[in-house]
Amino acid sequence: MRAGKHDVIEVIHAKRDGGVLSTSQIDWVIDAYTRGDVADEQMAALAMAILLNGMDRREIADWTAAMIASGERMDFSSLTRPTADKHSTGGVGDKITLPLAPLVAACGVAVPQLSGRGLGHTGGTLDKLEAVPGWRAQLSNDEMLAQLDSLGAVICAAGDGLAPADKKLYALRDVTGTVEAIPLIASSIMSKKIAEGTGALVLDVKVGSGAFMKSLDDARELAEVMVALGKDAGVATVALLTDMETPLGRTAGNAIEVAESVEVLAGGGPADVVELTVALAREMLAAAGRDDIDPADKLADGSAMDVWRAMISAQGGDPDAPLPVAKESHVVTATADGVLTRLDAMAVGMTAWRLGAGRARKEDPVQAGAGVVWHARPGDTVRAGEPLFTLHTDTPERFDRALATLEDGYDVAAPGTSYDARPLIIDRLA
Amino acid sequence: MRAGKHDVIEVIHAKRDGGVLSTSQIDWVIDAYTRGDVADEQMAALAMAILLNGMDRREIADWTAAMIASGERMDFSSLTRPTADKHSTGGVGDKITLPLAPLVAACGVAVPQLSGRGLGHTGGTLDKLEAVPGWRAQLSNDEMLAQLDSLGAVICAAGDGLAPADKKLYALRDVTGTVEAIPLIASSIMSKKIAEGTGALVLDVKVGSGAFMKSLDDARELAEVMVALGKDAGVATVALLTDMETPLGRTAGNAIEVAESVEVLAGGGPADVVELTVALAREMLAAAGRDDIDPADKLADGSAMDVWRAMISAQGGDPDAPLPVAKESHVVTATADGVLTRLDAMAVGMTAWRLGAGRARKEDPVQAGAGVVWHARPGDTVRAGEPLFTLHTDTPERFDRALATLEDGYDVAAPGTSYDARPLIIDRLA
Repeated sequence: MRAGKHDVIEVIHAKRDGGVLSTSQIDWVIDAYTRGDVADEQMAALAMAILLNGMDRREIADWTAAMIASGERMDFSSLTRPTADKHSTGGVGDKITLPLAPLVAACGVAVPQLSGRGLGHTGGTLDKLEAVPGWRAQLSNDEMLAQLDSLGAVICAAGDGLAPADKKLYALRDVTGTVEAIPLIASSIMSKKIAEGTGALVLDVKVGSGAFMKSLDDARELAEVMVALGKDAGVATVALLTDMETPLGRTAGNAIEVAESVEVLAGGGPADVVELTVALAREMLAAAGRDDIDPADKLADGSAMDVWRAMISAQGGDPDAPLPVAKESHVVTATADGVLTRLDAMAVGMTAWRLGAGRARKEDPVQAGAGVVWHARPGDTVRAGEPLFTLHTDTPERFDRALATLEDGYDVAAPGTSYDARPLIIDRLA
Repeated sequence: MRAGKHDVIEVIHAKRDGGVLSTSQIDWVIDAYTRGDVADEQMAALAMAILLNGMDRREIADWTAAMIASGERMDFSSLTRPTADKHSTGGVGDKITLPLAPLVAACGVAVPQLSGRGLGHTGGTLDKLEAVPGWRAQLSNDEMLAQLDSLGAVICAAGDGLAPADKKLYALRDVTGTVEAIPLIASSIMSKKIAEGTGALVLDVKVGSGAFMKSLDDARELAEVMVALGKDAGVATVALLTDMETPLGRTAGNAIEVAESVEVLAGGGPADVVELTVALAREMLAAAGRDDIDPADKLADGSAMDVWRAMISAQGGDPDAPLPVAKESHVVTATADGVLTRLDAMAVGMTAWRLGAGRARKEDPVQAGAGVVWHARPGDTVRAGEPLFTLHTDTPERFDRALATLEDGYDVAAPGTSYDARPLIIDRLA
């Protein structure tokens, strides 16, 4: 414990007045908040001051270290394989973890993927996998280690022991309008990943309308901070900046994203999902020192699919069971011939959320079958009367608001209009 | 109720991102906070965003109106006399309310003085008066009105019905480092004074080390905002900017400030206390339309003292009872001949606080007898071995920290050093 004795008002005033918090102040305030000696309203005021006045790199590193110190650290040193993990800052249609974890495991690198649930317009990996009948997200640390040892891949919920300060602070930020602070986002992500004990980490930092970071500058700043935090903690860390103006793949929802992921593992699936999955797998393998293997081969030869099936079974799921299907669906057709020139990730995410795929409050359930399928991607030609979108929900009274949200989320231009595709992978930071 | 339906995150984000809150947003958030639908941590985040990003005049007026609307308004229209109130933003040794209220009443203007308790280094009027044996601060609205009618002066605690939103928000700001926000200070003061129903209001806005406003620019800004709020609400409002680099009078504490106030009512007392009391009385009389009367006469002829004695008796106090005396005292003497060139209000206030005159938490008691007496004021000649300060407390273990605080709070320069006195009344805004 490095923390000296401090007073919460002194710490709030220091940051409020544009100062730099000392290591001792940061250690004290995180510890006192975790113990309940600093109240939620005090931490909320401090979080807003951090959001508006920022933190320098040393403060962010100290904040991250203090959150790691608030809980346990996992130890994968008993594994014979190297470990690599991936974190996405969250996007729409981002099901990449599902094919990626078994693919990297099939290449000989263990993937300890601690995931979360969705809140708001971005889906959560655990919500998606829970669409698989029988699959369970909660594993003990021992179960997680055993599965990593036997199969090389596990996707599960983070245990309560890992960075409890972050868990408490994240819930607070969510209700106090203080989510969008780069120092707090970076320390939240990295405290969990460092405490988790992975040897290598690849960050997928999303940028665009459907991402937390709307601008490339903000995304780059966040990526730089996280890469530095990882390296300082001895984790081989790389970041890709990837596009989230347009949603990934063809689906946003839970069961329908699992189905799309299985297509990718079977050697098919949307080109962008395959591209990003393979690119991230290459980065993870390289960071773990196994760049001698080409992950594309492991998709092609079915070995990634084998790990997927074993991983689902090991956590109680039935990889052969039919996935849930929503009770109702509604098709949106094109009103004229033309070219789809815009498909907005935020609008698609909000549409899926309004259909029941996401939750408004942490305690809300999600609908496994709800979501949106888009039948065209930007640049595609569309024809009058042909389907553009299929909306799915168990609760058809949701269609009206969902359709109203979707309506402004895409543009169809005159036939022959040219479309300049944006690159999916915008930059790489290491 | 002007408030539309809003979401607290929307309101926090708007202010966080530098926007202007609508009347409807402000009405909604104050009402929802008072009802408990907006949580303390959410209001704390909003308060910090207001502190750092500010509010324009329209927002401050709306915020004030919403706090007034959260509770009852008092009605003094049955009184035959006009009403005038005074509010000080708080300073060290600021006992002016004690002689001022009976003085103005003696001049024929009723003074409905709702006061508060001290927190931190500034004393509270109610704490001071409670040093008078038997005196009670709590009056019902009916008792207050009856006393105003019969005596023309009442100093008492604000009832729970007046601006309950302010009461809740003030307590929150106190623990979240968000006290020093001009929009929130101005709306807190003015919501209570407007709801209280006074016809005229004189603001004593303190500036200097011992005040909340350390700079003249900030004090002027606060005064301007409050004068505008008062006028918009139909209250004849004037502000004096007065010095708080040096504490007022000769004493900071509870019983010792009452004793000094009684000296002033008896026609004596420190010159600065008399000057400010008379100046504020003149402003109150003028604002209430009674500038035909000179308050100095009413100090000289004993009629202000008569009102004081009646006012103390009416609230259960014994104006002839000896005031409490602290169990222990300690004298600080001058170490050399010279001139006192600096006596820092904040240091004196903190010294009195450390001796037990003030409280660290709202629920703490104060010591009636504790405090500091200074035997010289800036510009006075001092002689080696003669007393500079006398410290009083019931708990002598407090002397060490109090003396350490006081030590840096004054300077004695070589004999003959010239001293340029600062004016006590710096400016007037109307």
